[in-house]
Amino acid sequence: MELSLDKIAEFVAGELEGEAAKRICDVAPFEHATADEITFAGAPKFIKRIEETSAGAIIVPLHVQAPGKNVIRVKNPHVSFTKVMGLFHPPDRPRPAVSAHARIGDNFVHGVDAAIAPGVVIGKNVVIGDRVILHPNVVLGDAVVLGDEVVIYPNVTVRERCRIGSRVIIHAGSVIGSDGFGFAFDGDVYHKIPHIGIVQIDDDVEIGAGNTVDRATFGKTWIKKGVKTDNLVHVGHNVVVGENTLLVAQVGISGSVTIGKHAILAGQAGVAEHLSIGDHAIVGPQAGVGRSVAAGEIVSGAPEMPHQRWLRVQSIVPRLPELKKHLADLERRLSRIEKGSAQE
Amino acid sequence: MELSLDKIAEFVAGELEGEAAKRICDVAPFEHATADEITFAGAPKFIKRIEETSAGAIIVPLHVQAPGKNVIRVKNPHVSFTKVMGLFHPPDRPRPAVSAHARIGDNFVHGVDAAIAPGVVIGKNVVIGDRVILHPNVVLGDAVVLGDEVVIYPNVTVRERCRIGSRVIIHAGSVIGSDGFGFAFDGDVYHKIPHIGIVQIDDDVEIGAGNTVDRATFGKTWIKKGVKTDNLVHVGHNVVVGENTLLVAQVGISGSVTIGKHAILAGQAGVAEHLSIGDHAIVGPQAGVGRSVAAGEIVSGAPEMPHQRWLRVQSIVPRLPELKKHLADLERRLSRIEKGSAQE
Amino acid sequence: MELSLDKIAEFVAGELEGEAAKRICDVAPFEHATADEITFAGAPKFIKRIEETSAGAIIVPLHVQAPGKNVIRVKNPHVSFTKVMGLFHPPDRPRPAVSAHARIGDNFVHGVDAAIAPGVVIGKNVVIGDRVILHPNVVLGDAVVLGDEVVIYPNVTVRERCRIGSRVIIHAGSVIGSDGFGFAFDGDVYHKIPHIGIVQIDDDVEIGAGNTVDRATFGKTWIKKGVKTDNLVHVGHNVVVGENTLLVAQVGISGSVTIGKHAILAGQAGVAEHLSIGDHAIVGPQAGVGRSVAAGEIVSGAPEMPHQRWLRVQSIVPRLPELKKHLADLERRLSRIEKGSAQE
Repeated sequence: MELSLDKIAEFVAGELEGEAAKRICDVAPFEHATADEITFAGAPKFIKRIEETSAGAIIVPLHVQAPGKNVIRVKNPHVSFTKVMGLFHPPDRPRPAVSAHARIGDNFVHGVDAAIAPGVVIGKNVVIGDRVILHPNVVLGDAVVLGDEVVIYPNVTVRERCRIGSRVIIHAGSVIGSDGFGFAFDGDVYHKIPHIGIVQIDDDVEIGAGNTVDRATFGKTWIKKGVKTDNLVHVGHNVVVGENTLLVAQVGISGSVTIGKHAILAGQAGVAEHLSIGDHAIVGPQAGVGRSVAAGEIVSGAPEMPHQRWLRVQSIVPRLPELKKHLADLERRLSRIEKGSAQE
Repeated sequence: MELSLDKIAEFVAGELEGEAAKRICDVAPFEHATADEITFAGAPKFIKRIEETSAGAIIVPLHVQAPGKNVIRVKNPHVSFTKVMGLFHPPDRPRPAVSAHARIGDNFVHGVDAAIAPGVVIGKNVVIGDRVILHPNVVLGDAVVLGDEVVIYPNVTVRERCRIGSRVIIHAGSVIGSDGFGFAFDGDVYHKIPHIGIVQIDDDVEIGAGNTVDRATFGKTWIKKGVKTDNLVHVGHNVVVGENTLLVAQVGISGSVTIGKHAILAGQAGVAEHLSIGDHAIVGPQAGVGRSVAAGEIVSGAPEMPHQRWLRVQSIVPRLPELKKHLADLERRLSRIEKGSAQE
Repeated sequence: MELSLDKIAEFVAGELEGEAAKRICDVAPFEHATADEITFAGAPKFIKRIEETSAGAIIVPLHVQAPGKNVIRVKNPHVSFTKVMGLFHPPDRPRPAVSAHARIGDNFVHGVDAAIAPGVVIGKNVVIGDRVILHPNVVLGDAVVLGDEVVIYPNVTVRERCRIGSRVIIHAGSVIGSDGFGFAFDGDVYHKIPHIGIVQIDDDVEIGAGNTVDRATFGKTWIKKGVKTDNLVHVGHNVVVGENTLLVAQVGISGSVTIGKHAILAGQAGVAEHLSIGDHAIVGPQAGVGRSVAAGEIVSGAPEMPHQRWLRVQSIVPRLPELKKHLADLERRLSRIEKGSAQE
């Protein structure tokens, strides 16, 4: 594939300075781009080194000058570059077709151009939208609903009645709609609480590989529009995750937690049950959240504390041996004085 | 479905006060229950607010009075309500049948009413009990044995020779019987230790989604009766988990750990190899257990310590900056005195 | 199976002292071995108790004397015993055959003696070596390349274009080549960054169950020769893991981390993005690595610190309440002195 620079500039609605007819063959990172590739320089550290790249063209922020270089100026170079990547590397779309080796239940309703691979098993009364891609060995339970342009990678399970919006991506091996971890204890054994709710995943969500998202006891576990989860994330029953929130790898969210929009939970963090995490809150890596976090708050540590305090605490913790020694030193000096006073 | 209150009271062996003939259509949580639904009030905070529910009937502890309400009095309202939930929402049972699209090895022995879905692959010499449900794309290795009424959700793998009791539930994507993480190191490379043991899972166990339970090097990894695991739990080779113990989400148990009965390991906790955790012990969330824990002990923190001590420690940690400042203040004051003494 | 001791000694190139013709039927652990089984004693604690074992023969280090016992002396008893285990318990090899119930894409190239189970789905242009075993329901994407003697357990997904060397083992449920967690943020929503790179796994790697290894944004995520990962390990995009490094269960490696050779990351440890971990470094369990770790360094804690310091810190943390009390005591005593001085 080859595109002229002016076509690329037009595609990202950017301002081109340089050779309009220049042919570009691919995208590449700043350090490795060659004369027929395009790259981007968003952060100051790259803009400063813009002379060093051998790229045939560079996507840069508005107002950046780079005499002698082909540049496309845009508001957000990273976002624009991402779009250009997609132009040169459109996602692999399997040919639309329903494999004869997929097993499909009664009353299946599907839109146009579904690509359903061998080994897919679909229950009864399932409804899917247009241009859905189900990779091999995906299992959809009875009465599952998928929107348009959903992509589900191999070996994913979506259990009965779960509802998934449009343009949702679910990576391989994930499980949507498993029973929540809920039992009634009689003092001796645990009685399983039926989980009669569902999982609802809204538009534009991306679920990483190896996730587990439990269905609600009653009602729904709800992953709202634009949420992105990394790999091996656990979401308990009845959790609500707000719009455009990020859950980084190996995060664990206990049952009935409510998370606001635009929050970020860093890798391996855990949240105890029934808490709420506010909009735009940030939870640090490996944090153990044991109380609710206000909107905009940044917390770190286990148990969590305000991030600024945590930074100060963590600057002291490794020096606890010196602190203890200091204390022993004061003790000695004080005893000496006390002894002196006593002798006076 | 509709049931009269007296039938429900009879089903849970409870004491009904109110309209025996009252029709109930469903179960619902305390806050949302309507006039033809039944709910429960077990904890004091709900019993106190019993006047507020619009539920058509309420399951309550013995001796609770609620004039004007339909109540069913039982010993354990949560357990009884759970049973009533199961009455109104019996688990989806696929029609018993062995799919023509399942692949079944030689010498397969099965009880009555097996439901074996498309995409299931069963090895040689497998034996399963009555009313077993194998959901799509489950894989059972050679010589696996399952008891009665086992339910295995999609995309689960049970490897060769593992033995699973009756009424066991395994959620989607879990792996039972993978090789343990054992290697002999020759100073340069790691030589794989064959894992010739198995996993044995006893009756009434529920394994969450995305679990990995490794087979033993020799002998067996053993999950005893009534154990419940949450999602993404790792159980290493040769581990023994005692009866009715709970492993919450993302817990990791290293090889050769022995856990007693009725223990609880909270979310993301980890246990180092060869340790033992006693009966009724509780391990806090994200705890890192580096020594054995006695029966009945409660530990928290990483490394773990007695929970009461951990609470006191955690009340100090965030105030380490103040503690350090206090120390500096004492230092200053003490120096002043020392200087004063020296000048005398 | 039965082997004479001299044959076993020959197989491990060991020095036999005892009955050359002695028949051995199996391997067993030190405590449980019986008269027709062989065991090993590598660590001093077993060598000390060598009189206690009932084993028919014992593999021991060079120069160990055990009068009256049949011993085979070798340099590394654990490694030799591991090889003897493999002799008595060769891995289950399914009969080489391509199942009629596997679905195989165009231009499939395979070596001799492939064993491809029912439910396997293979994309276009896939190339696999000799004696490869693909267990049921494995999915290989387009243009995947596997070397010789690769074993892939059930329900594993290897996505398009990933390259896997020879003698690699991938345990059940793992995902190789999922998209990395990379998004360009426009201030409101996250735009997916296409992941056009791959995962390359070199020879002799073993990947545990339930792992997720993300493909690179550009280039490759690279797991080098001899690496072993335990279960539920997450490896982010563009990570490089050096030769013979161990990643223990539930470890999480963020994007673009470079790990050297012969390193060990203990269970549940996490590494922040873009860092490097040197050759022979050791990262303790549950450690949170927030800075690069030098070759040979041992770190523990979250955030990480040198292990020796961490040991000292951890000996103080549980005694923080006493430390605080001590401080209060000094405060009181100092105040008394100050008051005394003031009164003078």
